[in-house]
Amino acid sequence: MRVLAVDVGGSHVSCGAVDDRTLLEVVSIESDGKGSLKNLLPVLAETLMQLAKRHGGNFVGIGFGFCGLVDTTAGRVVSTNHKYSDATSVDVTSWAREQFGLPLVLENDTRMALLGERHSGAASGSDNVVMVTLGTGIGSAAIMEGTLVRGRHFQAGCLGGHFTVVLGGRRCSCGAQGCFEAEASTYALPEICGTWPGFETGPLSREKKLDFATLFSWADRGDSVATAVRDRCVGIWAACALSLVHAYDPELFILGGGVMKSSFPILIAIQQHVDSYAWTPWGNVRFCQSQLGETAAIVGAVPLLQIHLSQR
Amino acid sequence: MRVLAVDVGGSHVSCGAVDDRTLLEVVSIESDGKGSLKNLLPVLAETLMQLAKRHGGNFVGIGFGFCGLVDTTAGRVVSTNHKYSDATSVDVTSWAREQFGLPLVLENDTRMALLGERHSGAASGSDNVVMVTLGTGIGSAAIMEGTLVRGRHFQAGCLGGHFTVVLGGRRCSCGAQGCFEAEASTYALPEICGTWPGFETGPLSREKKLDFATLFSWADRGDSVATAVRDRCVGIWAACALSLVHAYDPELFILGGGVMKSSFPILIAIQQHVDSYAWTPWGNVRFCQSQLGETAAIVGAVPLLQIHLSQR
Repeated sequence: MRVLAVDVGGSHVSCGAVDDRTLLEVVSIESDGKGSLKNLLPVLAETLMQLAKRHGGNFVGIGFGFCGLVDTTAGRVVSTNHKYSDATSVDVTSWAREQFGLPLVLENDTRMALLGERHSGAASGSDNVVMVTLGTGIGSAAIMEGTLVRGRHFQAGCLGGHFTVVLGGRRCSCGAQGCFEAEASTYALPEICGTWPGFETGPLSREKKLDFATLFSWADRGDSVATAVRDRCVGIWAACALSLVHAYDPELFILGGGVMKSSFPILIAIQQHVDSYAWTPWGNVRFCQSQLGETAAIVGAVPLLQIHLSQR
Repeated sequence: MRVLAVDVGGSHVSCGAVDDRTLLEVVSIESDGKGSLKNLLPVLAETLMQLAKRHGGNFVGIGFGFCGLVDTTAGRVVSTNHKYSDATSVDVTSWAREQFGLPLVLENDTRMALLGERHSGAASGSDNVVMVTLGTGIGSAAIMEGTLVRGRHFQAGCLGGHFTVVLGGRRCSCGAQGCFEAEASTYALPEICGTWPGFETGPLSREKKLDFATLFSWADRGDSVATAVRDRCVGIWAACALSLVHAYDPELFILGGGVMKSSFPILIAIQQHVDSYAWTPWGNVRFCQSQLGETAAIVGAVPLLQIHLSQR
């Protein structure tokens, strides 16, 4: 099956063409992640046209991953989180029909990435798997007994970043307090550091861009605030993984997202925590990094279209 | 369908006989909840025999609810939590065949209670529902799209009391730290109060039995420690409900367990929190109390046997 794909994530946008398990090409598109989805459509259309032309056509549909709550049946974005806030009023299904004469399936971006990892990545052959992406926010997705977890209103599985981990904690972009995402994600990091005791007088306060790469780098150089914030964030991520293991009972846990590119052994720290504390008498959940990285959602367009076409 | 039922919960044991949606009789059995399941079997057998005799026989099977992790397919208790620690070595399926010549289906007690509420209680007709029981511990169960959530190792849905809500918090009976259950349940309450600033000099320190009824009663009389602990526990329960809404995407949320018998408006407080903070653009999750109370799991034996017999 040959499909076109779009991935509109929290911090990156890309288009791609996939032939079953072969990624034919992926093209990154500049975006600030805060703009308008409507304004993004022309460049997406142009890019997909060029991809189709370069790779010989015969594409059966378009898989469209979006960083928000998505009603897959209606083909509509239901809710966004300060990213592309016009997305709920954009009808991408009609857009695809008019522009390409192709069916389009819309899905949450992390769910689509997990479908991709299962199709030809870290989760090949696994029917019980959870994926978490650590980046701008914290995304999650789950497959249970071979079925992608979506729930009645398409919200199950993808809101793992919004379980409460700190009672009365930091205000999250979703409106609640103390969500995993509010306590340890790239968008929250400047505020987390800024309110940490000792921040003002340390080297972090002189950084223009406070992301996890910068934080880990200062921790490596022995800065006490950077080390403390790093250890706390790793603790939050480990608790998030533990909670998701208890929620969805997976055999395999995939960690992805930009933060995982860091040299700090995040995966080992999380695995050790879950090995020690998960209530899993059957054995240990296996942890691994995303294999497909930023192309996971693009590859996920193939199984997404397969599910869609099999249900018609 | 006529079934016999056993419910071995954290703080009570009962046997019952059910004819489809009609509870014929339920019999409570004295138990300290810490003893041996093997030693409990003779009295369970005797009680079920008498129930069968009084209600005319023709029972097709036995549903057996147990307060621990249960492998329904193998018919074995997989793990217990300091309650009936011999249960993993007790073969209740063989016991039922030998004693009654009947098939027995073993299930987690909260899952069985949720099946009961859906069969003829608060969740009648609902295909997307989460149940939480607040009592000795915190039990949970979920039905998604009409299917009881069990997961690969029968652990999904029932471990909502063991998501992390306090990083590095109280040691839980499961071994982890800061689980919802460790931060707000009857077994944890004496320790929570005992370490609360001001406890030693207040009226709670003179109580022999420190349960939520006692706590709420002192809070009603204006004791500041009791009020603070009560408000914190309600906050923990509200965060637990919010996390479970985000995990399983229900339309309906049932609250049960002994703590809900209190006059304090726990349900309203939890509902208000979830109404305010759940990321549910489709609307509000409906909250209600368990209708069947301590008989929910007994009634759940009917749908449990129905699922079992339909899968053979």
